[in-house]
Amino acid sequence: MNDPLPSGAVIGILGGGQLGRMLSVAASRLGFRTHVYEPAANPPAAHVADRLTTAGYDDAEALRAFAASVDVITYEFENIPTAALDILEAARPIRPNRRALAVSQDRVSEKTFLNDLGLATAPWAEVNSAADLDAAIARIGTPAILKTTRLGYDGKGQARLRAPEDAADALAAMNGAPAVLEGFISFSHEVSVIAARGLDGSVACFDPGENVHRDGILHTTTIPARLTLAQRTDAVLLAARILNALDYVGVMGVELFVTDQGLLVNEIAPRVHNSGHWTQNGCAIDQFEQHIRAVAGWPLGDGSRHADVVMENLIGDDVLRVPAIAREKNAALHMYGKAEARPGRKMGHVNRIVTKG
Amino acid sequence: MNDPLPSGAVIGILGGGQLGRMLSVAASRLGFRTHVYEPAANPPAAHVADRLTTAGYDDAEALRAFAASVDVITYEFENIPTAALDILEAARPIRPNRRALAVSQDRVSEKTFLNDLGLATAPWAEVNSAADLDAAIARIGTPAILKTTRLGYDGKGQARLRAPEDAADALAAMNGAPAVLEGFISFSHEVSVIAARGLDGSVACFDPGENVHRDGILHTTTIPARLTLAQRTDAVLLAARILNALDYVGVMGVELFVTDQGLLVNEIAPRVHNSGHWTQNGCAIDQFEQHIRAVAGWPLGDGSRHADVVMENLIGDDVLRVPAIAREKNAALHMYGKAEARPGRKMGHVNRIVTKG
Repeated sequence: MNDPLPSGAVIGILGGGQLGRMLSVAASRLGFRTHVYEPAANPPAAHVADRLTTAGYDDAEALRAFAASVDVITYEFENIPTAALDILEAARPIRPNRRALAVSQDRVSEKTFLNDLGLATAPWAEVNSAADLDAAIARIGTPAILKTTRLGYDGKGQARLRAPEDAADALAAMNGAPAVLEGFISFSHEVSVIAARGLDGSVACFDPGENVHRDGILHTTTIPARLTLAQRTDAVLLAARILNALDYVGVMGVELFVTDQGLLVNEIAPRVHNSGHWTQNGCAIDQFEQHIRAVAGWPLGDGSRHADVVMENLIGDDVLRVPAIAREKNAALHMYGKAEARPGRKMGHVNRIVTKG
Repeated sequence: MNDPLPSGAVIGILGGGQLGRMLSVAASRLGFRTHVYEPAANPPAAHVADRLTTAGYDDAEALRAFAASVDVITYEFENIPTAALDILEAARPIRPNRRALAVSQDRVSEKTFLNDLGLATAPWAEVNSAADLDAAIARIGTPAILKTTRLGYDGKGQARLRAPEDAADALAAMNGAPAVLEGFISFSHEVSVIAARGLDGSVACFDPGENVHRDGILHTTTIPARLTLAQRTDAVLLAARILNALDYVGVMGVELFVTDQGLLVNEIAPRVHNSGHWTQNGCAIDQFEQHIRAVAGWPLGDGSRHADVVMENLIGDDVLRVPAIAREKNAALHMYGKAEARPGRKMGHVNRIVTKG
């Protein structure tokens, strides 16, 4: 089971969004076929996948047939229902493993795991009631941010507390879901490390990128990030520590805040990550191929960087700028084939290669 | 009809081999879907295409349905039957156009077209009989090479004449097909220019690469090619002249011999070309995307080169070296997903990025 998958093997991908789409393309480069499992119709990944199953995560029969048709299973998002994972894992290996999913599906588990590893996070407290929130505010202070422990992404499921008086409104915004209060910390910028670990335990990291968000969604990633050599070393060691502790196989995105007191972990994502899209045009092996290599039991690839890159997400109406971007020098477009441009919807990205001089 | 195709449009591709496969991937990057038409079962392009039609080029009904389902039609090989093109062209634009296909499908048409443009080729003569061949040998001399005028590729349909005594055997090898005798010329090396022309008439060329063949099949392409600045300029201007004369839209491969008397045109291919595969890892926009951009009426992309590259074809049993290549630094694998490795069969290629110093 730990032999490298041969060319022609089938990689099963849970989730048919843009990450699954770019994973499919990377898998094809290594001679693999892909089978995408996605509940929604006409998913972006289907355009470049060999096979598509359209079924829900509660469809045990479809899940079993999917698992039987593939050699290994990976995923593009972390919020996969546990019951579905149980069915799939009975038939085929899931990489990255269940523990990585369990840890990152839940902010409490994630922060506990990180703190237990000795890694710093922003101050946080579990909030399951108004009394919890009052106690948390008393300890952490405001401003702070209340987040649902599960199913949050791109700023969804979050409420800001400018002052203790905002507590009731913030709690109401959680709709009764378990939540976490996170204290604001003073940081100069956010960076992320796209780290990979192979089935043989080897670890490789791409150069850290520097992230800028807009309206709670990643806007740009710039490589190289502003980091001292010591910070860069810390970032990479810290990511490796997380991967090793989870016996992780695949690519992980590790978001870090750069502070005067050192690096704090913002969050981890057990999958290829938006802040790693720049690798498509800056490296011989990009994050998508690196993930497929790991999942397929291949040696990790050479992720050394041959160019400076600025990645910009194209969100919603940003697609109106595509004709102009198509005329730019040194700009590589990556569109996701989504039919409709809605506000906040990621439609594509552009990697601008920064030439010297 | 000349407006740029919008994201979501469908590119029809005739031929489902590795070129169609890599065209499909490039089309997906721009947000297009692809529909591949291929007579053979399980073609490499199907793994990454949105739709596949399995039907022959004599199936008028399938051709019409295919054309109706796409916005524009392109192709990965030049030997498409005329009757099929007639049916397709009645429904949708074919890019590159019919004239480019007619010229390059037939060595006599091609050489006549090139010579009429004032471009030099090796000495040649049409051979339809033993008497033609004797006359051709008398004029051109030996060694020489006899080639069928149509359907030749990768050294197939060719016979060498070391001396006039080889005439009868060489003619027999043609199986009665119309042929061309080509004289041997003294050249130092072969280069190729991957040139593109947009729907707006603009022309862009990738840096010329230097080709080495083995057993009549391309073995490596090295970028940059050994060319003086003047030769490089000549090569690019000559390619542009060919594209303009054909009112060409898309990418063309132009193979050139470098001789003491200047550049001779070996052959032209009205499609993406094996000697342009290096662009996948040396340029922001590769030859596949450049072709799709042209065919879709988009502006040509920036094909400037950011790295030196050596492309090596993986042919037949070369696939046994894939596990070792996967461990190399700066090596980008591109496998074609072909199930069976037969001698002479192109299974994939590797682009080795040459780092400085």
